[in-house]
Amino acid sequence: MAGGLTRMQADLLQPDLALASALFDALSLATRRGSGIVRDSYGAGEQAAHDLMRAAAGDLGLDISIDAIGNLMMTLPGRDRNAPRIVIGSHLDSVPQGGNFDGAAGVVAGLSALSALKQAGFEPGYDLTVMGIRAEESAWFDVPYIGSAGAFGLLDPACLSVKRSGDGRTLESALIEQGFDPEAIRGRRRLLDPTSLRAFLEVHIEQGPTLVAQGLPAAVVTGIRGCRRFRQARCIGEYAHSGAVNRPFRHDAVAATVALLHHLEAFWVEQEAAGADLVFTAGELYTDAALHGPSKIAGETRFVIDLRSVSEATMNRVAAEARRAAARLGDAYRVSFDLGATSDSPSASMDVRLRERLMSLLDQPCEMPSGAGHDAAVFARIGVPTAMIFMRNEHGSHNPDEALHVGDFAVATRALLGLLTDFPL
Amino acid sequence: MAGGLTRMQADLLQPDLALASALFDALSLATRRGSGIVRDSYGAGEQAAHDLMRAAAGDLGLDISIDAIGNLMMTLPGRDRNAPRIVIGSHLDSVPQGGNFDGAAGVVAGLSALSALKQAGFEPGYDLTVMGIRAEESAWFDVPYIGSAGAFGLLDPACLSVKRSGDGRTLESALIEQGFDPEAIRGRRRLLDPTSLRAFLEVHIEQGPTLVAQGLPAAVVTGIRGCRRFRQARCIGEYAHSGAVNRPFRHDAVAATVALLHHLEAFWVEQEAAGADLVFTAGELYTDAALHGPSKIAGETRFVIDLRSVSEATMNRVAAEARRAAARLGDAYRVSFDLGATSDSPSASMDVRLRERLMSLLDQPCEMPSGAGHDAAVFARIGVPTAMIFMRNEHGSHNPDEALHVGDFAVATRALLGLLTDFPL
Repeated sequence: MAGGLTRMQADLLQPDLALASALFDALSLATRRGSGIVRDSYGAGEQAAHDLMRAAAGDLGLDISIDAIGNLMMTLPGRDRNAPRIVIGSHLDSVPQGGNFDGAAGVVAGLSALSALKQAGFEPGYDLTVMGIRAEESAWFDVPYIGSAGAFGLLDPACLSVKRSGDGRTLESALIEQGFDPEAIRGRRRLLDPTSLRAFLEVHIEQGPTLVAQGLPAAVVTGIRGCRRFRQARCIGEYAHSGAVNRPFRHDAVAATVALLHHLEAFWVEQEAAGADLVFTAGELYTDAALHGPSKIAGETRFVIDLRSVSEATMNRVAAEARRAAARLGDAYRVSFDLGATSDSPSASMDVRLRERLMSLLDQPCEMPSGAGHDAAVFARIGVPTAMIFMRNEHGSHNPDEALHVGDFAVATRALLGLLTDFPL
Repeated sequence: MAGGLTRMQADLLQPDLALASALFDALSLATRRGSGIVRDSYGAGEQAAHDLMRAAAGDLGLDISIDAIGNLMMTLPGRDRNAPRIVIGSHLDSVPQGGNFDGAAGVVAGLSALSALKQAGFEPGYDLTVMGIRAEESAWFDVPYIGSAGAFGLLDPACLSVKRSGDGRTLESALIEQGFDPEAIRGRRRLLDPTSLRAFLEVHIEQGPTLVAQGLPAAVVTGIRGCRRFRQARCIGEYAHSGAVNRPFRHDAVAATVALLHHLEAFWVEQEAAGADLVFTAGELYTDAALHGPSKIAGETRFVIDLRSVSEATMNRVAAEARRAAARLGDAYRVSFDLGATSDSPSASMDVRLRERLMSLLDQPCEMPSGAGHDAAVFARIGVPTAMIFMRNEHGSHNPDEALHVGDFAVATRALLGLLTDFPL
């Protein structure tokens, strides 16, 4: 017996795919701007997604509450309302011109699982809560995990004065405008007690191409890569005539930046060859459009370096090498690098027993690290047993072409249902 | 005897520095806009400079004529008006927010030399003409050498429909507005017969830092570097999540572009080591601000590659290597490079006898190539014996901080006078 269902009844449970399809369509309709999705953190786009989830949860008869910073809690009450509960959650914001599934698919998976449990008459022993988490993407406020870290009182209150890209509104004024309370962040108030949580479960699209390449519908996540990001790196040289200044007299910011990035790519290859888990990316790189020119040596570049690994030691080693190389190459090229501070997010491990149980629920078991950060990392690092399921997704994430097929969504959500109806912790 | 002067009289000739100072002050006053100089090609700024030079030439009693496209000819008549003449010239336009000396200093040098000759009673055997050349800078119409190439009927008539940056006025309408005749360009009319020219002489500020670094006042130019420019180079990859896509699945446009530029810098160093004259610059390089992001692998870069050398063979070798490397590295990085066509401007050699004579006239002889293009290249390439003298100049060119000291101007203009009074051709 699992919550009033026989084992056989539980095994036959199917996620509510009609609900899932309707929610994905509604999300796309409400938050598409041009070709891509725009669910700006603490803005109109994110709010539209929250409104849709809240309405669906109301239709399902779930208990609904919203915390002081806007996280949406949609609960199927358990027999013991005081027992530690399971939270199934993900975020409802997106990057600018993102896709329909990054984040939202995990909330939709949670709701379609609770809908199935409710329709089957399943009575959980403890609360099962689907959490629509705020502001996971750092694209808007340059701070990741605002909703989940904020729920645990972990945010640096200084983040309240960070301005949103695009409209320049501070996080504090955006919170107030949406009817939330910046004092919760300023006072580092704990809105969610980690000891009240039995587990945190997150279903998410895979953001890389591995499952597509392997022909598999879903995977269990082993751990989440942390990140060291040089977000505001600059190289300052001197503008000069491209034809009239020979090499010994140049202060060429592009040449120096190319040398630095090339060196760090070679260092990455060495680290990989030595068995380290690492990805290295310079995703933004630009000369100054107001000052550069086809016949000018560039006097400035700006760029971003993003390092990720499941190992803190590896990230520290590469970040230190970046600073050493910038000093050395700055001298060699007669320019100065200012890499600035890194914004860091630590790596996180998933719960071994939950991983094993999920692996047993997949017809084609598969495990992989998560290269992207997720709210699950915040829950895991504060000590909540945490698991993640990846769904196959074409064309990567953070772009309008994310593609999640309903069959893969069903495989992952069935594994989630299997875990909920026979929970090992 | 040189033109009625004894050798000793000729050797004692001094340029008219009072005239030069007055003209530089008047130019600055008339064409400074904010901190920089604006002498827009076929616009009010360039015209103001022409008006000043024409008035000075009138005061000196020179013959004045203006050709169909606005080049200003100021002539000290020779005893044989039909004999091939010497033209001393440079341009009177500037880049936007340029400096006071780039171009104009060569016209001022010519007038202060003719003033000295006139005051000394020098009677040349053939005409000596100072030419205020129109529209040398490509900054306005994206076409260089409009005045000098147009005088020889060498312009592609299609340039008449090119729009001026800033106000969008076509070259044709700008010509008409200034009272000139676009039909001269449309008909490729030859306004100046190369066989009627004994030589072309151009005095110009050095646009690089070499003379400042070497502590020398002036140099004789050996040749003018040509240019191969990949103006619209692109690398097309695929945007993807920076953490979630491992190396084998990446199509990273920044990594590939860095690899290409790094390879070409190494190739440059090799060419230099083998004795080739070459400068290599990527002065514009940027990811797409609308699509890039700190946690995204970049799906596109755009960049400019500018190659310059006094040797056509060297430029061809480097341009070919750029194409080969782009194909090879495009495959290696799973991206595609589109370098596009090059815009080419050929190199030009200075006349060896004129170089030797000028070297003999400098107390501290020094030779160097010109990295920037000049009207002198147009004259040299059509077969006119051509020479250039560089003057020391601080802070480079094409900016408001150009600084030419009167002592260095005097050294260069004395060499010009020495050449005019004892001409070897």
